[in-house]
Amino acid sequence: MSKIDKVVLAYSGGLDTSVIVRWLQDTYGCEVVTFTADIGQGEEVEPARAKAQALGVKEIYIDDLREEFVRDFVFPMFRANTIYEGEYLLGTSIARPLIAKRLIEIANETGADTISHGATGKGNDQVRFELGAYALKPGIKVIAPWREWDLTSREKLMQYCEQHKIPVDFSNKKKKSPYSMDANLLHISYEGGVLEEPWAEAEEDMWRWSVSPEAAPDQPTYITLAFEKGDPVAIDGERMSPATLLEKLNKLGGANGIGRLDIVENRYVGMKSRGCYETPGGTILMKAHRAIESITLDREVAHLKDELMPRYAKLIYNGYWWSPERRMLQAAIDESQAVVNGEVRLKLYKGSVSAVGRRSADSLFDERIATFEDDAGAYNQKDAEGFIKLNALRLRIAAGKGRDLI
Amino acid sequence: MSKIDKVVLAYSGGLDTSVIVRWLQDTYGCEVVTFTADIGQGEEVEPARAKAQALGVKEIYIDDLREEFVRDFVFPMFRANTIYEGEYLLGTSIARPLIAKRLIEIANETGADTISHGATGKGNDQVRFELGAYALKPGIKVIAPWREWDLTSREKLMQYCEQHKIPVDFSNKKKKSPYSMDANLLHISYEGGVLEEPWAEAEEDMWRWSVSPEAAPDQPTYITLAFEKGDPVAIDGERMSPATLLEKLNKLGGANGIGRLDIVENRYVGMKSRGCYETPGGTILMKAHRAIESITLDREVAHLKDELMPRYAKLIYNGYWWSPERRMLQAAIDESQAVVNGEVRLKLYKGSVSAVGRRSADSLFDERIATFEDDAGAYNQKDAEGFIKLNALRLRIAAGKGRDLI
Amino acid sequence: MSKIDKVVLAYSGGLDTSVIVRWLQDTYGCEVVTFTADIGQGEEVEPARAKAQALGVKEIYIDDLREEFVRDFVFPMFRANTIYEGEYLLGTSIARPLIAKRLIEIANETGADTISHGATGKGNDQVRFELGAYALKPGIKVIAPWREWDLTSREKLMQYCEQHKIPVDFSNKKKKSPYSMDANLLHISYEGGVLEEPWAEAEEDMWRWSVSPEAAPDQPTYITLAFEKGDPVAIDGERMSPATLLEKLNKLGGANGIGRLDIVENRYVGMKSRGCYETPGGTILMKAHRAIESITLDREVAHLKDELMPRYAKLIYNGYWWSPERRMLQAAIDESQAVVNGEVRLKLYKGSVSAVGRRSADSLFDERIATFEDDAGAYNQKDAEGFIKLNALRLRIAAGKGRDLI
Amino acid sequence: MSKIDKVVLAYSGGLDTSVIVRWLQDTYGCEVVTFTADIGQGEEVEPARAKAQALGVKEIYIDDLREEFVRDFVFPMFRANTIYEGEYLLGTSIARPLIAKRLIEIANETGADTISHGATGKGNDQVRFELGAYALKPGIKVIAPWREWDLTSREKLMQYCEQHKIPVDFSNKKKKSPYSMDANLLHISYEGGVLEEPWAEAEEDMWRWSVSPEAAPDQPTYITLAFEKGDPVAIDGERMSPATLLEKLNKLGGANGIGRLDIVENRYVGMKSRGCYETPGGTILMKAHRAIESITLDREVAHLKDELMPRYAKLIYNGYWWSPERRMLQAAIDESQAVVNGEVRLKLYKGSVSAVGRRSADSLFDERIATFEDDAGAYNQKDAEGFIKLNALRLRIAAGKGRDLI
Repeated sequence: MSKIDKVVLAYSGGLDTSVIVRWLQDTYGCEVVTFTADIGQGEEVEPARAKAQALGVKEIYIDDLREEFVRDFVFPMFRANTIYEGEYLLGTSIARPLIAKRLIEIANETGADTISHGATGKGNDQVRFELGAYALKPGIKVIAPWREWDLTSREKLMQYCEQHKIPVDFSNKKKKSPYSMDANLLHISYEGGVLEEPWAEAEEDMWRWSVSPEAAPDQPTYITLAFEKGDPVAIDGERMSPATLLEKLNKLGGANGIGRLDIVENRYVGMKSRGCYETPGGTILMKAHRAIESITLDREVAHLKDELMPRYAKLIYNGYWWSPERRMLQAAIDESQAVVNGEVRLKLYKGSVSAVGRRSADSLFDERIATFEDDAGAYNQKDAEGFIKLNALRLRIAAGKGRDLI
Repeated sequence: MSKIDKVVLAYSGGLDTSVIVRWLQDTYGCEVVTFTADIGQGEEVEPARAKAQALGVKEIYIDDLREEFVRDFVFPMFRANTIYEGEYLLGTSIARPLIAKRLIEIANETGADTISHGATGKGNDQVRFELGAYALKPGIKVIAPWREWDLTSREKLMQYCEQHKIPVDFSNKKKKSPYSMDANLLHISYEGGVLEEPWAEAEEDMWRWSVSPEAAPDQPTYITLAFEKGDPVAIDGERMSPATLLEKLNKLGGANGIGRLDIVENRYVGMKSRGCYETPGGTILMKAHRAIESITLDREVAHLKDELMPRYAKLIYNGYWWSPERRMLQAAIDESQAVVNGEVRLKLYKGSVSAVGRRSADSLFDERIATFEDDAGAYNQKDAEGFIKLNALRLRIAAGKGRDLI
Repeated sequence: MSKIDKVVLAYSGGLDTSVIVRWLQDTYGCEVVTFTADIGQGEEVEPARAKAQALGVKEIYIDDLREEFVRDFVFPMFRANTIYEGEYLLGTSIARPLIAKRLIEIANETGADTISHGATGKGNDQVRFELGAYALKPGIKVIAPWREWDLTSREKLMQYCEQHKIPVDFSNKKKKSPYSMDANLLHISYEGGVLEEPWAEAEEDMWRWSVSPEAAPDQPTYITLAFEKGDPVAIDGERMSPATLLEKLNKLGGANGIGRLDIVENRYVGMKSRGCYETPGGTILMKAHRAIESITLDREVAHLKDELMPRYAKLIYNGYWWSPERRMLQAAIDESQAVVNGEVRLKLYKGSVSAVGRRSADSLFDERIATFEDDAGAYNQKDAEGFIKLNALRLRIAAGKGRDLI
Repeated sequence: MSKIDKVVLAYSGGLDTSVIVRWLQDTYGCEVVTFTADIGQGEEVEPARAKAQALGVKEIYIDDLREEFVRDFVFPMFRANTIYEGEYLLGTSIARPLIAKRLIEIANETGADTISHGATGKGNDQVRFELGAYALKPGIKVIAPWREWDLTSREKLMQYCEQHKIPVDFSNKKKKSPYSMDANLLHISYEGGVLEEPWAEAEEDMWRWSVSPEAAPDQPTYITLAFEKGDPVAIDGERMSPATLLEKLNKLGGANGIGRLDIVENRYVGMKSRGCYETPGGTILMKAHRAIESITLDREVAHLKDELMPRYAKLIYNGYWWSPERRMLQAAIDESQAVVNGEVRLKLYKGSVSAVGRRSADSLFDERIATFEDDAGAYNQKDAEGFIKLNALRLRIAAGKGRDLI
């Protein structure tokens, strides 16, 4: 066991990470620095201070990272219309690189030689935290208690708390949930419990951020979302900061039953896992971003983006945000977004979001050419013959030489 | 103008293609063979016989291609989770290669040297018809009247009808629609009219196949869809033929307001065009196919499919179904589907379809490993350390040599 | 035939384009502006002035574009290790966008409404010229005489010269070659003649830029090539301008029999065509660029570049240099090249070029880790077990559920 | 340490794996089964029997796998023109899955619960062996002595031999080489020694399979290679078995100085490593396969293969031969090869191999269309105008709306 002096711990203030504080102090005889971030999870972060102090922590960091999270992580990702495995909007994945970055910044500030986190050895989050940390500070040491200790059940954890006099807040609602949850401004996720049986339907009372489509209003809500360089900047004409805007979209989406998802996904560590997600604002944003791109992007650029996207999504899911290949893809994606400006009108209704209108000073939609009416010569239909003939040439030569396609 | 003896025409029985029959006869002095197919467009095809006869056509083909359409075109396409430009389920595109194939088969049977169709010179369908025809019979000639004649407005067409005594059925509802429509078992599409302004919302009474989400039942509908080798074979335990199954899904989807889409898409001929689509059954099928794949496909196979899909979609959209590169991709896709067996439980409600359960004898979901509870050693959490360390090695070496990622 | 006022013609000074000058004047009654560029084809361009004057041309442009050609077109392309169809270094393709750009610039300067060129209707060059022109000036008109006129044989051309008193230089060696040739600083190409039979070997005396490997020196030549940001900047420590450097590499390669290529390639217009190429400097540069990247690029960046390359090559081959999708790919490629600095030592010998050494201040090669000897703990071999175990997990689960891979 | 009963060891008969036999017996108290394969490494395998017997091994497998190796591994890989990182022909990588498969087959036959190998913890081979083993028999245990023991230097190994009376053959030339070498019918590789300095040139006497280009004959050698379904079947008209054919190509290539390579490559475990390779037959085969494909493959199929290739190469390099994603790609590749039949004429000369002729009954090369001479109407040059116009349309619309590409 290598010598550890000071550890920066990603600290939620909850039971598990409180146990980790004490366990690190006891096991490694080291000082613990706690870092608690508000990334929009919807819980107060300030109470973490008193809890950390009670555990003897002297250096306590509590940061509001909401704007940075949305501006520098969520929005760049949405520029690529990023979806993992056809469904998942990467709500958990995209928060991890920001946490990793802050852990390293704090390690640099406090002279800590080690970071620690509360992610288990079965999941993706350990990978995302640690790849990020190693990429940003190659000599950093990492302690992942869940991979080391023998507190492998809730009973053992509670016993540990009792032995070490760690106060347990039995009124905490989240802890009583049968699900393992995670939340930030982009989404809330649910795993475990009955979800471990993929045939079982999630219970209605599991969902926390959205009403059921059944309970949504009987009248649709229309909004207009404005974009600049691929990022949303205003709702119904009102400019907002990134975090404010996403929070507003979450409320609008949640009130209309939008953004629920129930999937089985493939983890980077090699197993399949069932997850349920609520991403109300992100679901609206995805639809809107595709719609504004549909009139402003060149066709081949749009297609290239679509072909690169699954790889980009996989990078983020697997924890490679802080990597040169992600930067390389981001350079291509960002290059495409300078022209993605304009407005999209959206209809939110009982679980669905539809783009019903889109307009832009950068629109490439050319009604003169597209029209079914007389186009006054804007497009010469006879050109199509040569276009088809030469595109068919290789196929005709092959067929003429006896190649059979049926 | 090259000598034409006999032309096989894709004949709907409607005004436009009736004019084409006469125009071909007059302009080329050739015999016209008509071919009318039922691909589920929802209109009787038999009346086309009398109309063709009235125009002096002697060889009249009227085929019910619904089963072939769904079995050999729609289902193979859905095996790839095919979506064009992130949204469009390719309802029009996938019907064209079947029409092209039958045109060529009939040309071979009747000794025709030419085919003809009623697609305009601005659209994708001309390309799809003609690429298919050339690929299957390289010496075939093609006449595309809309690229040749001067009947460029409805007025001129009506005048032509009057001059040539072609009966015009003014009671035909479809003709009075302000939209250009196309339908088959997979979808119905709308273009033109107010849709030519991308900011304008489609009118509610445009939609024909689905009720609005507002008008859908207040109770969700649950169905179970069974798959074999990637294709759906039964609904709620009842086995059905491909066309019957898709028709049933269309009814279920339509009744629950599912499958409406409003997009601006990029045509192969180079322009952007606004289209609205209703694809009720296809929307359900897409969701269900992804869900059954989520528990039966290997992760890397799933990701490879996702990366190949945009290219496969583009091939079909652009008219290259009958091409060796489509066959090559299909071979890869089909190789992956042998294990895609099992059942998906779906919830249909007010415009949304959700997968709420999935099960399969070929499931790779391993609850022993995935569980948050004690896994009895099925997974060794300590393996994760080495996994992360070696995946991070290249990043650490780079960071150690001063490469900066922020 | 639309009204043409003034045409800018890509004018080589040779027979064909001289005929075009006169034919344009006669056929369209328009003024002709000639544009002749030195892009390193190895022939004097100044004589084109007198020839153009003799044909009555008043506005004559003669430009030395060699530095711009290599700096802004050849080098950016080589950053991607660009090869078309596994073999072809795109020597012709990469010169065309520069010509197209100058044609449009001159059209803007002279107020011309039209451009013209001497490329045939069967080849790729017409596409490259015209796509570039349309992309840079959408209202430009294009006249491609070879697609219009009836001077379809050499005899008819000569007859036309006689009738119109166009002087024919019978001493011109190039014209007597049985091959159609094209040259610039990157390569010289040969098509036609006996090459139209793909089984026939090219004759030794066809090759002009390189000695045969047989005739190359019996002693190898070693050179050291220095790179900055992915571009070569010095040979054996001597800094040179881009064009000077490539010219020097051509001489070194040619003297050692390097860079001959004999292939059948697929043209964009749909046919296969046999071509022979000499690319002495480019062949050396490709090898060297890969070698300097091998120690400076991150693995995943290198692999991403390799996967994007065929598409990038195809874009350039097909004439889409001036397109937003090429810019998007270039942004990704260029992002990767900031660290591609250092030196490569090369051995040139009888037709082969080998990289025998590479070094860089940005090297990621870590001998401490890579060594077969004791590495003093730089790498923990036990990490490999977890790495392999988790990478194998999905395969083990599948095999455990009966999936059979053999 | 889990209980081990019987281990199948990949046994070369050399010093290292002889030590492993004894170490396994001593450390685990288990029975050892040895497996020695002839995959064309050029050394007798039969002597391994006596050595194994001397170590007390009772179950000894000695197999000639040369034909299976070339037929089922090398040739399928070459169908894809597989090259890793632009240079490496994967000679080591492609042999490992065959060894893994035999290890598992022998484990099944002998009732062994474990396999073992002599690969180090730093390299790719451990990954390839173990991923293959786990994929084919998920419950198998693996012992990798180099990751476990403390015999980390040659001195310690020799000491171990002395202590355990393992005979050391000091006459063995290979052992005295300063390089770590590996050979099979496809190639021989060199690592370590002076190669650990990437700037240092490999010494001439390192190379074993090929003469230097300097020492190659002054006259070129011409051969004709015949292909069926993408695989080579005959040299100069003489049909040969796969292994015989590759052996013959190795001799021809080696005699002409063909197939030497000196690179720095990226290992799967995360480090860069210098390697030198001789792949004489494979280098010829690669050139020839591309040449026969150049006249028989459709353009888009060829391009799709080129885009998939880097990923396929990476799979093999990283050890995923036995995976469903490799099978999926193989299905696509093999689908393309049915038409890859015909002959290629090659010139071998002083280190270079050139394709100088290619012919096939399945050729798509159409001299009627490709000709520079009068084509009697086979190709209508006027078609090119429409082809270009519509391909340019999106670019013209964008330029017309002010998009600037320069």
